[in-house]
Amino acid sequence: MRPAIVLFGDSITQGSFRPGGWGAALADTYSRKADVVLRGYGGYNTRWALFLLHHIFPLDSSKPPVATTIFFGANDAALSGRLSERQHVPVDEYKENLKKIVHHLKKWSPTMLIVLITPPPVHVEGRDEYARSLYGESARELPERTNDVTGTYAQQCVQLADELGVRTIDVWSKMQETEGWQKKFLSDGLHLTPEGNAVVYQEVIRVFSEAWLCAEEMPYDFPHHSVIDGSNPKKAFEQRCI
Amino acid sequence: MRPAIVLFGDSITQGSFRPGGWGAALADTYSRKADVVLRGYGGYNTRWALFLLHHIFPLDSSKPPVATTIFFGANDAALSGRLSERQHVPVDEYKENLKKIVHHLKKWSPTMLIVLITPPPVHVEGRDEYARSLYGESARELPERTNDVTGTYAQQCVQLADELGVRTIDVWSKMQETEGWQKKFLSDGLHLTPEGNAVVYQEVIRVFSEAWLCAEEMPYDFPHHSVIDGSNPKKAFEQRCI
Repeated sequence: MRPAIVLFGDSITQGSFRPGGWGAALADTYSRKADVVLRGYGGYNTRWALFLLHHIFPLDSSKPPVATTIFFGANDAALSGRLSERQHVPVDEYKENLKKIVHHLKKWSPTMLIVLITPPPVHVEGRDEYARSLYGESARELPERTNDVTGTYAQQCVQLADELGVRTIDVWSKMQETEGWQKKFLSDGLHLTPEGNAVVYQEVIRVFSEAWLCAEEMPYDFPHHSVIDGSNPKKAFEQRCI
Repeated sequence: MRPAIVLFGDSITQGSFRPGGWGAALADTYSRKADVVLRGYGGYNTRWALFLLHHIFPLDSSKPPVATTIFFGANDAALSGRLSERQHVPVDEYKENLKKIVHHLKKWSPTMLIVLITPPPVHVEGRDEYARSLYGESARELPERTNDVTGTYAQQCVQLADELGVRTIDVWSKMQETEGWQKKFLSDGLHLTPEGNAVVYQEVIRVFSEAWLCAEEMPYDFPHHSVIDGSNPKKAFEQRCI
């Protein structure tokens, strides 16, 4: 009965139901109104995400989600020739892959609210610290991501959204507007702190509400308890349930 | 593709995706393995829940959830003749209603893992403080719930689970084993603090794991990124996606 909102992305989506996570906060906001469906795949880039596309979003299913967030790029932007190069996807291919995902979703449902989210910024020193905390002296010396390179992916993501006429959240730029974003929003130079999660949550809510998916304006799936008459409960349920 | 775990209950279920919530923690634990579906209805008792039963759990649907938690009683146990009497359901009817819910689910899927959860304990002074914080001098004088009465509902819930051969979590007893449970686990004498949520989460995980729904032993829906060959990603997806 309830519409579905799908969160499709990498580890920053997969981890979004941890304490303070942006996915859990969305599920709470849309509680009794829409289901928030978690489709986050840690470590995935857009190239690998394409293998899942037809399975997660099967065109022959009659009930497409009303909205989908697409939140990749943090792994695509891993540098070639460095430790995480296995995850690297060239920026042109990243853009092309995102376009395929959007086209697939639009084919399924032309009315679906699609939100492209850029990768968050990268704090190289934070990544270094994290690597050393795990591997000590044997930690890799050269960074596997830089903020500038990730920025070019963010830019292409925003540009694509404009080209395709879908909505976008530029998390990369948004976070850097706040002083101290490096530690305030990022726990390990890449993944989000609760404060970083709050930024994503607020932006998603803003974009959803500016479109037409405003939780406050959506009806409850079933009557609010305050409208149920204790001596004649049947009445409140007549319209929807009997 | 993923199995579903449904959380059916009142406000203590509805609020389970707030920061520190037991529902969000479950969704995180079963991430990439099962979907946690929120069906919490604040203020509802079992009498009203019956109106929703066939809609939330339609017998003609071919995909029943693998597990369902049923977590009512906090409102059923509201005292007759007091402020919340509209929500009151006599204890015998509460037990009978729970039985109807379990029978319905078993009819849909005899293999479904069903967990009956008792209401949490009630801290009357905490409820009083909360009422005064809302209404000041004009707050109701007589408590709308007592711990002893809620305890009789918890007892019937446990007894029914034994009779029906389904699993149960006696949150009412479990929480009272810890000194200071009144403030540690309850935020307003009735609803759960993050610590109270953690108790429910740990108990649900324990019961699920003791049955057969252990997250660690369940397969990922799609390959873990570490098994994907960067130069030949197709290989990792052959079994499931091509």
